[in-house]
Amino acid sequence: MLTHTSKFRVRFNETDPLGIVWHGHYVTYLEDGREAFGEEFGISYKDIQHAGLFAPIVKCTVDYKFPLKHGDWARIETNYVDEMASKLHFTYKIFNEEGKLVATGETIQVFTDQKGELFLSYPPFFEEWKRKNQLL
Amino acid sequence: MLTHTSKFRVRFNETDPLGIVWHGHYVTYLEDGREAFGEEFGISYKDIQHAGLFAPIVKCTVDYKFPLKHGDWARIETNYVDEMASKLHFTYKIFNEEGKLVATGETIQVFTDQKGELFLSYPPFFEEWKRKNQLL
Amino acid sequence: MLTHTSKFRVRFNETDPLGIVWHGHYVTYLEDGREAFGEEFGISYKDIQHAGLFAPIVKCTVDYKFPLKHGDWARIETNYVDEMASKLHFTYKIFNEEGKLVATGETIQVFTDQKGELFLSYPPFFEEWKRKNQLL
Amino acid sequence: MLTHTSKFRVRFNETDPLGIVWHGHYVTYLEDGREAFGEEFGISYKDIQHAGLFAPIVKCTVDYKFPLKHGDWARIETNYVDEMASKLHFTYKIFNEEGKLVATGETIQVFTDQKGELFLSYPPFFEEWKRKNQLL
Repeated sequence: MLTHTSKFRVRFNETDPLGIVWHGHYVTYLEDGREAFGEEFGISYKDIQHAGLFAPIVKCTVDYKFPLKHGDWARIETNYVDEMASKLHFTYKIFNEEGKLVATGETIQVFTDQKGELFLSYPPFFEEWKRKNQLL
Repeated sequence: MLTHTSKFRVRFNETDPLGIVWHGHYVTYLEDGREAFGEEFGISYKDIQHAGLFAPIVKCTVDYKFPLKHGDWARIETNYVDEMASKLHFTYKIFNEEGKLVATGETIQVFTDQKGELFLSYPPFFEEWKRKNQLL
Repeated sequence: MLTHTSKFRVRFNETDPLGIVWHGHYVTYLEDGREAFGEEFGISYKDIQHAGLFAPIVKCTVDYKFPLKHGDWARIETNYVDEMASKLHFTYKIFNEEGKLVATGETIQVFTDQKGELFLSYPPFFEEWKRKNQLL
Repeated sequence: MLTHTSKFRVRFNETDPLGIVWHGHYVTYLEDGREAFGEEFGISYKDIQHAGLFAPIVKCTVDYKFPLKHGDWARIETNYVDEMASKLHFTYKIFNEEGKLVATGETIQVFTDQKGELFLSYPPFFEEWKRKNQLL
């Protein structure tokens, strides 16, 4: 399985009056995890753009299990889920310093050209990427 | 069905290098819709806090169908979904000015006391709220 | 004097663990005030872009006098300060519902073409705008 | 001089439709720099709170000289400026990877107790901190 783990630290301005991370900021944590994955495996936003493509998010889900607080260190595990369809599918697990699972997430992206036209089959860049990673 | 519709306008700083709203900002749109609903129906964050409760988000999902751009006017329809369990469940529809559905969303909240202890059955405030709205 | 006043309401997610608006969010309030001014007087981001120009911020200052809290209504007064130089200079006053001055701000923007080349003298759009508003 | 340098990387969601960092996000960069300084020198938000104090920002200024883009690495130099008054005064310099100065900033904080009452003279924690750092 293609996976990447990165660490992050909770900023003061990410926390709310309850003293915990406001739920919307987890979307940023997922994006940070996905970008770190993308840089390791050559499928970051920049890699995709260099290929003349965009990969807009079409679905994003977060399940919250346990709060994070200002100053907490956490790690996010970003897992690539292989699909037949022309989609980028990731699942995420966020753990706190004690190794407790504090949130899970999921994102789905599609590929479009620069005019926003959807690719129903694999764009060449993605097909090549899949081959390079033994997924085809 | 308990429902509320509110309008909002896309800020410059909510848009990304592709010129469209960055997907994470929709979580704010959902919260704005939910708060507007809450103020109409007496179940806003403040109402909940005045009752000595918190209602943390345990799940948040957004499905993106069509982009929004800087300056666009949109409206969000916030729908309360009644559940047997001690939960606040909302679904959301966001429409652009032409009436096109641009995104849908869903959030689930639970109730805790001020120490973070979960209510497995309805806290009195919520039971009363349900009765007031003919849901019990 | 060219001035515009607009109202806004403090969002839950703009407040920090101290229960007050995190200081960085005032930059958004200034931008909202400036955009509302711009739409009234024909010098919004979109107006500037339609003229083939950009107007990047080169300086931004906020002085904080009194906190704002979740749910507070406030109003921002955006004042255009006329300059000889080819600059957009605004000052801002933010008042709470009781009319108390809670913050002041200032921004300076310059004009560039679409390649980022600075205009040292007035671009035609800005000269015309000044004439239209009896500033030349 | 008490100074601290930390590195950061520009996130996709910090950039605007012009492809550059939206100016408001620099306030976060300053806070990140200040917190990194605070952790090295024992005067972070948490240290201040453990002493029963708050240190709200009363002034924040940013001067923008050159844009930052998605993926850029930058470093922020946070400098403590010693004052007679009971204030925390920092200046900041942000450099891009080529060592070019892209922005400067300044923040001023005051000390209050937990009720928000201002300290006109040094609170004991701050006096001790100054002594420890040969500033008194």
